[in-house]
Amino acid sequence: MGPLATAVFYRLVVLNTVARRDQDHIPLIVDSHAQIPDRTAFLLGEGDDPRPALREAAYRLAEAGADLLVMPCNTANAFASDVESAAGRPLVPWLETAVAAACGDRKASDTVRCGLLGTDGTLRTGLYRAAFAERGVEVLEPDKRDQASVMDAIYADDGVKASGSASPERRDALVVTARNLVERGANVLLLACTELPLAIPADDPAWPARTVDPALEVARLTILRAGARLRPIPVPA
Amino acid sequence: MGPLATAVFYRLVVLNTVARRDQDHIPLIVDSHAQIPDRTAFLLGEGDDPRPALREAAYRLAEAGADLLVMPCNTANAFASDVESAAGRPLVPWLETAVAAACGDRKASDTVRCGLLGTDGTLRTGLYRAAFAERGVEVLEPDKRDQASVMDAIYADDGVKASGSASPERRDALVVTARNLVERGANVLLLACTELPLAIPADDPAWPARTVDPALEVARLTILRAGARLRPIPVPA
Repeated sequence: MGPLATAVFYRLVVLNTVARRDQDHIPLIVDSHAQIPDRTAFLLGEGDDPRPALREAAYRLAEAGADLLVMPCNTANAFASDVESAAGRPLVPWLETAVAAACGDRKASDTVRCGLLGTDGTLRTGLYRAAFAERGVEVLEPDKRDQASVMDAIYADDGVKASGSASPERRDALVVTARNLVERGANVLLLACTELPLAIPADDPAWPARTVDPALEVARLTILRAGARLRPIPVPA
Repeated sequence: MGPLATAVFYRLVVLNTVARRDQDHIPLIVDSHAQIPDRTAFLLGEGDDPRPALREAAYRLAEAGADLLVMPCNTANAFASDVESAAGRPLVPWLETAVAAACGDRKASDTVRCGLLGTDGTLRTGLYRAAFAERGVEVLEPDKRDQASVMDAIYADDGVKASGSASPERRDALVVTARNLVERGANVLLLACTELPLAIPADDPAWPARTVDPALEVARLTILRAGARLRPIPVPA
């Protein structure tokens, strides 16, 4: 739904597929339907309901021949069951995949404390908190001021949705937010908004903890479910 | 058709649109139909005819509501008229846009000598040569050995289609190819294959001449034709 996040997700699927030639890639139909009402705004009670447009888009993809759906937007996955039933096709599970990647192997999961970086809408739904709670994993969310930094990195004029990346100031504020979560005990950080990996350079030495990008994890699961060959080592965007 | 090139084209459309929020972007449907037979192989008489699959894909996009089509593959634009008539929808003109960008303003076009970097198939069709000839512009093509370097940068195991970028060796060979064209008189280089901009870093100081990426030019024209707002300064991928 975020068109840039969708373009990045599509690229992740391509880069993580073992393909010696174009024809080895999985066939994808992308409905970049940017006019779907903002998911976060709706979940905060401030905007139109995106569900009718989501259902219609999913139905059209199924009609166009899609066997498997994927919705590269953390917030929109709050409506996963609506979308699956409208299309009669399964979604690649976004939240579950992200949570599993954050927890790593089961033995370690009781020592995981996850810092959650996402939109106000994603946090407000409590979907990630619930999924982590099932595994007994503690979730830490940014305080009010830091959460404003996260929203600005996504939505401000010098943030990802308007400018394709985040300005150095927005980026620095995200680093502060991440550090505060780590200081409070987080030992893994989940980038629970598809715009955030575009704001944070993967190789930033100031970034303080192991970080999970759900888009990368879901892209890899999509390749497997579609029956293509997965690169053994993850390739970031 | 090259899935990575398609992902990059989609990203160029997003990055070159003025949008304060997702909903300002143009709605796009991407049919990433990687199974369409290789265009170059067919044009060289060595592979299946891609036209039936191209016609079907174009028809399906029109059925899905597309008013305007764009085919981010230089070689495939050899079949532009087939695609337009199958879909009953216009294509954003790829070859003409690339040629116009290479020529710059009309007054200068009699001093333009264009070095053409593309697949064997694209060169063999002579489509670019014909379009440049209409403007009286001389075209220089790599010699046999350099043309092999271009093909390797695209098709070898350490080239763009198989690895997402080009190895340093493939990249160096492309620089040599470009320099040889400039030495023979080229003063502008046209990257007439959507994989080539992924092999050449835009900021490589060793790259010898002004270079036109048709994908960027066509992405910008697509934004205008779709009625969205274009960023005044081009944003490369």
